[in-house]
Amino acid sequence: MLKAEIFVYLKKSISDPPGIAVLNSLKSLGFDNVEKVRMGKYIVVYLNENDIEKAKEQVKLMCEKLLCNPVMEEYKFNISEE
Amino acid sequence: MLKAEIFVYLKKSISDPPGIAVLNSLKSLGFDNVEKVRMGKYIVVYLNENDIEKAKEQVKLMCEKLLCNPVMEEYKFNISEE
Repeated sequence: MLKAEIFVYLKKSISDPPGIAVLNSLKSLGFDNVEKVRMGKYIVVYLNENDIEKAKEQVKLMCEKLLCNPVMEEYKFNISEE
Repeated sequence: MLKAEIFVYLKKSISDPPGIAVLNSLKSLGFDNVEKVRMGKYIVVYLNENDIEKAKEQVKLMCEKLLCNPVMEEYKFNISEE
């Protein structure tokens, strides 16, 4: 079994209202040195697969077909043995 | 400037309807070897801080005070130079 950890996040040029909301909340809690916050999705996919190269190809397709909106988002992932 | 990547995710014992929805969508797209999907939050916090140990303590506090619901969620993070 392989475990893919996928990180989907907004492109830098896209504004991030949830991130701004969290930034303001952190500041109000006294975390004054917080400069910026960006919110994204952390998706863990468990694959019944042993070949890491095959798994990489599949995860790329999953991101392109479903998990990531290419207009506004980018993604990165890592794959490890579960 | 330091960059904290924070991963907030449901405890194993908690059911994950969004994860089940994504699992079913992936299956319908032909990804038959997907066993399980868990959805979580990927939060990137930029800190005007140079001391990594201090930053770690601050991020822990951020998670405990705001970013993570201890009843249902767990978190992990890593800190790197931006």
